[in-house]
Amino acid sequence: MAPPRLYLDWNATSPLHPHARDAVLRALDLFGNPNSVHGEGRAVRAVIEQARRQVATLVGADPAHVIFTSGATEAANMVLTPDFKMGRTPIAIGRLYYSAVEHPAVREGGRFPKDKTTEIPVTSDGVVDLDALGALLAAHDKSAGLPMVAVMLVNNETGIVQPIADIAKIVQAQGGLLVVDAVQASGRLKLDINALGADFMIVSSHKIGGPKGAGALVTRGEVLMPRPLIHGGGQEKGHRSGTENSLAVIGFGAAAQAAVAEFDARNAAISALRDRLESGMRGAAPDVVVYGAEGERVSNTTFFTLPGLKAETGQIAFDLEGVALSAGSACSSGKVGESHVLVAMGRDPKLGALRISLGFATTEEEIDRAISVFAKIAARRKPAGEAA
Amino acid sequence: MAPPRLYLDWNATSPLHPHARDAVLRALDLFGNPNSVHGEGRAVRAVIEQARRQVATLVGADPAHVIFTSGATEAANMVLTPDFKMGRTPIAIGRLYYSAVEHPAVREGGRFPKDKTTEIPVTSDGVVDLDALGALLAAHDKSAGLPMVAVMLVNNETGIVQPIADIAKIVQAQGGLLVVDAVQASGRLKLDINALGADFMIVSSHKIGGPKGAGALVTRGEVLMPRPLIHGGGQEKGHRSGTENSLAVIGFGAAAQAAVAEFDARNAAISALRDRLESGMRGAAPDVVVYGAEGERVSNTTFFTLPGLKAETGQIAFDLEGVALSAGSACSSGKVGESHVLVAMGRDPKLGALRISLGFATTEEEIDRAISVFAKIAARRKPAGEAA
Repeated sequence: MAPPRLYLDWNATSPLHPHARDAVLRALDLFGNPNSVHGEGRAVRAVIEQARRQVATLVGADPAHVIFTSGATEAANMVLTPDFKMGRTPIAIGRLYYSAVEHPAVREGGRFPKDKTTEIPVTSDGVVDLDALGALLAAHDKSAGLPMVAVMLVNNETGIVQPIADIAKIVQAQGGLLVVDAVQASGRLKLDINALGADFMIVSSHKIGGPKGAGALVTRGEVLMPRPLIHGGGQEKGHRSGTENSLAVIGFGAAAQAAVAEFDARNAAISALRDRLESGMRGAAPDVVVYGAEGERVSNTTFFTLPGLKAETGQIAFDLEGVALSAGSACSSGKVGESHVLVAMGRDPKLGALRISLGFATTEEEIDRAISVFAKIAARRKPAGEAA
Repeated sequence: MAPPRLYLDWNATSPLHPHARDAVLRALDLFGNPNSVHGEGRAVRAVIEQARRQVATLVGADPAHVIFTSGATEAANMVLTPDFKMGRTPIAIGRLYYSAVEHPAVREGGRFPKDKTTEIPVTSDGVVDLDALGALLAAHDKSAGLPMVAVMLVNNETGIVQPIADIAKIVQAQGGLLVVDAVQASGRLKLDINALGADFMIVSSHKIGGPKGAGALVTRGEVLMPRPLIHGGGQEKGHRSGTENSLAVIGFGAAAQAAVAEFDARNAAISALRDRLESGMRGAAPDVVVYGAEGERVSNTTFFTLPGLKAETGQIAFDLEGVALSAGSACSSGKVGESHVLVAMGRDPKLGALRISLGFATTEEEIDRAISVFAKIAARRKPAGEAA
């Protein structure tokens, strides 16, 4: 008999939060086109605008500055462009600087040609090298346009928190624009776009318990805006055309509202569970390497290497025991490649690393079962140096 | 007391088809990331691939040639680009020719600069002027790249059907690429991408009874492909990055399956209802002008002008009587502008026109009520020439 499933891959995606699930169910027959002026259209428009306020609250922004997209990847591609406008005046962005640990949606550079992008190194702790960033921006050639810097607030693989406020000061001193991927930070850190000093923030619905298919580009102001990625009917004030994905947007709003309301209780509980997990793991395998444990991490993520166990093999072993976790991120179709995050941190990527990530529904019982599966797998691995 | 609502704006968006609604409900807790290799991920992957086969069947294509997007607008922006690739070799598209009655998602030209786009005129019947198209393509300067032609199969405002097979012959003779927006044709005409001779087809979920937030770019082959619009994790074989919108895609597949299964019965019923409607309208107001009634139209759409009644005023009057219909299309936030379709057909756009569009749930009782509301509004309008 197959063991019951245990989901510990919340950084890949979250089950629907009960509040979001209810909102989607209630909205299922609210079918009008929100751009229609008749009653059916206006009813949908009203709930979309409510969701906009809920998402704005999650990130401490003005609701008027929330642009809904099909997800974080689209939002990244929308904002990462050399073509900006200030009102109707074109403003050129000369170069994109992104940290070496960014998600592929950012590392691919959006609409920047490859030769107009530069990687910012991170230290062995996985944190952006602030001196290197300062040097890169000081050497930036402004004649070709402003510099744009993209740094994620929380890394999806390690959970490591980047010092965004410090980065913002460096970027502002050079007259640059700062884009912050807050996908993995949402619901796990209190967010305030103004306090962070981000010019643009990217958030995603399905990482916080909303449906897949919605995300947002949130802006600090509305003067300097990217040229739209998707043109057409002029929805989202012309910034993003296409009929709004009302079901997903409504669920996103509800999930955001729950994340704000439950913030303290949820993170305290998850933090305790993660401590219990890592303590159990270290007890079962004292040689386990947990990345980022010394620095600032969000409370839900454990990224680790078990000497003697290849991550790919480990992932399958856990899956066979009923435990869903991941080897690196889940970003591209079924492929398990070398972790660019480990490489950027100067770690040996040969064995790879496994990620356990917890969420609002994770229980102590689940953690104890995860520890016992971990212990079982750790016990049967090959001696270090003889990776399976 | 407000009158009960009567929805006759199916070209703007459709209520969920019961089959799609059931599929969405069943999928609500199927939450894995389809790119995760564990059991939760694979379960979602399986239903997404089933949906891909269902959408492929709707348009007579190979499932491997269906690329899911966030909707038709994104699909249009993806394919309308000067940057194509044949394998790894860049192929330039020199100019985009689009018909004067296209949806704004096409008329905006995607990634083509404005000066690399040309409008193809339509006749007063709303059909693409084939001679004009031939002359434009004969004069196309191939040194700058291949020509691309975009013509919708069915117009969203009028329901008029374009002679795509004839257009395809003209385009092929000039070595061009043909993009067909089949959003309003899906479920209303039997579709076969090969028989039509389209190189690319665009379809949308929410116009056929699936959820909003899903669409597809369907290709006839897979050799010549547009440079991706959205870069990142490499989903959809690298053509469209971002976590798949599984709920919407699953609902899209189910709606497509229903559209195929119910095709004959649904269209026969809707056709009879539309005839009943137009006959009732002519009885109540013999001077009503129904556009496209002499040519080939899909069976669900009536686009009309009632002399003496401005479309905007008419729309509000119908809405107050409980009837949802539209003045032109519902493409951009609440704005009711001049119909570019009427202008392209050489008609006077001053009064505008109203669109009644029927769907799978429309009943004879609803049509009779629509006729009586129409008669009431027609009776109280100002004499022709004194538009309110």
